[in-house]
Amino acid sequence: MICVLTGGTGGAKFVDGLRRVIPAEELTIIVNTGDDDDWWGLYISPDIDSIIYVLAGILSGERGWGVRGDTFHCLRAMKDLGEPTWFSVGDRDLAVHLMRTKLLSQGCTLSEVTRIIAERFGLSSRILPMSDQRVQTRIDTPAGELSFEEYFVKRWFQDPVNSVRFAGASETVPAPGVLDTIASAQAVLIAPSNPVTSIGPILAVPGIREALAQTKAPVVAVSPIIGSAAVSGPAATLMAAHGLEVSIRGVAAAYQGFLDMLVAHTSDAAVAEALTTTRFQVHCANILMETQQDRSQVARTALSLACPQIVTAYAAEVE
Amino acid sequence: MICVLTGGTGGAKFVDGLRRVIPAEELTIIVNTGDDDDWWGLYISPDIDSIIYVLAGILSGERGWGVRGDTFHCLRAMKDLGEPTWFSVGDRDLAVHLMRTKLLSQGCTLSEVTRIIAERFGLSSRILPMSDQRVQTRIDTPAGELSFEEYFVKRWFQDPVNSVRFAGASETVPAPGVLDTIASAQAVLIAPSNPVTSIGPILAVPGIREALAQTKAPVVAVSPIIGSAAVSGPAATLMAAHGLEVSIRGVAAAYQGFLDMLVAHTSDAAVAEALTTTRFQVHCANILMETQQDRSQVARTALSLACPQIVTAYAAEVE
Repeated sequence: MICVLTGGTGGAKFVDGLRRVIPAEELTIIVNTGDDDDWWGLYISPDIDSIIYVLAGILSGERGWGVRGDTFHCLRAMKDLGEPTWFSVGDRDLAVHLMRTKLLSQGCTLSEVTRIIAERFGLSSRILPMSDQRVQTRIDTPAGELSFEEYFVKRWFQDPVNSVRFAGASETVPAPGVLDTIASAQAVLIAPSNPVTSIGPILAVPGIREALAQTKAPVVAVSPIIGSAAVSGPAATLMAAHGLEVSIRGVAAAYQGFLDMLVAHTSDAAVAEALTTTRFQVHCANILMETQQDRSQVARTALSLACPQIVTAYAAEVE
Repeated sequence: MICVLTGGTGGAKFVDGLRRVIPAEELTIIVNTGDDDDWWGLYISPDIDSIIYVLAGILSGERGWGVRGDTFHCLRAMKDLGEPTWFSVGDRDLAVHLMRTKLLSQGCTLSEVTRIIAERFGLSSRILPMSDQRVQTRIDTPAGELSFEEYFVKRWFQDPVNSVRFAGASETVPAPGVLDTIASAQAVLIAPSNPVTSIGPILAVPGIREALAQTKAPVVAVSPIIGSAAVSGPAATLMAAHGLEVSIRGVAAAYQGFLDMLVAHTSDAAVAEALTTTRFQVHCANILMETQQDRSQVARTALSLACPQIVTAYAAEVE
């Protein structure tokens, strides 16, 4: 079993690659829930949704979030009613939010809800929220402290960032299965997600960082940074605000203490070489995921480094 | 000000007629909430919605409920997820349910929520739920006790009916404004709604029947029964189960103690004559509301009998 830590659109693309390279049932995906928010009275878990949709093969490739070909009639009706509409919820997407909210109100945990929804989609991967308790990623900006969705979606990540905190994280525990998965995985992969706001909240849940340091499995991350810029999104700004150098050096620093290997872009070969030690390797490859083939290739690269036998085992079967 | 008691599709058609005959701001509409139900975790108030939509000019004429031209993408996604879909909620319709549910969860009363939603639609009529407390119309059938929506929508009102009760009604009070409206109206109109499950729940709220008996305004009902059959829906079955004759006699009996005048179909002239006393009149007219013109005509007939001066006042202005 391969464990993946993920969040954001880069994470969803990476998981899309993985599901094309090895069977979905080999994957257990630990997902960031720091972006979770209340929207129109519904509990929205954007990163879990993206993973569900990508595994179900219905993630919108065009948008990178939501359901492919979705319509927005309810959203427009909400706009006509004068309700906020800066967070786009499609009509089909709504079904998942409604179902999750109903199950949570009936007393299910987020893990249970996620398992039920994944089952209804017929998914064979295991999807685990990082915690069943609420962690809220809060972005402190000159305009005030914002939720991640406010910062990212509503305000187009244009605000300067003073700092980032994960409100509530210290009082949480990992969701059932999270620590076991990290301990018993053949490999732990960290998706090319934003280290601060996608992977950071996961690492802020007490016990997860320690489990990553202690697991016998190799821990391999794919860099979301090429040179001194993020492949997409606000990772660079957020890393800088979090005191991390915007480079593969910064990525390595974010994961210090448990990362065994970093997959960096070929253009970062010089820094990679300088970073490599006897206990920490940096492997250079193409890590851009522009096409579906790219995604599979990046997944295959990470898997080959972390767990070559699984790639060999399934090489003929998948794709 | 004209007060209207209403519920169901017949009630919505009648209100559609009224809004075409007198200005909407002259109308205060007291609406049945006995059909209210929880659906996908949302609070649904079907009769309030129909009145909102008809006043907004967007009620589907084809279906008699929901928003004209609405789509059902969320419903289909719910079906794919294995959730119940026998109660059809359109994508635009969802917006109202979401907004209502959110406001209720924030502590608003149903009256407040209804006022806010009506304002957002730009409506100038006043819409009052019969009560802010929950009343649940329960239909006892050989298949067990059903909610009104289960009986009516899920099972197509095919079950024999043993009895009908309005669970919780005795512990409720009329919503703010209901008693005042009845007391101070120029006329009270009872829509051609099902006397048992549309008007019955309103009358079951303690104080409303007394207010109708005491008001100085004439109380005029339009019959939902022609001959020995309902114009539409399960009114006949429900009236019989409730011990009411399925005829205009039964309608008169349901409203005994406060009804001053009943508008019946011309084909019921003989019974009408027999029913008429010095204190209770039955007026015969065409009460079928097949076309928009019919609706206006039925509204005009009821208004002319109850409050001729308002019809004269606005005769030139509206339509």
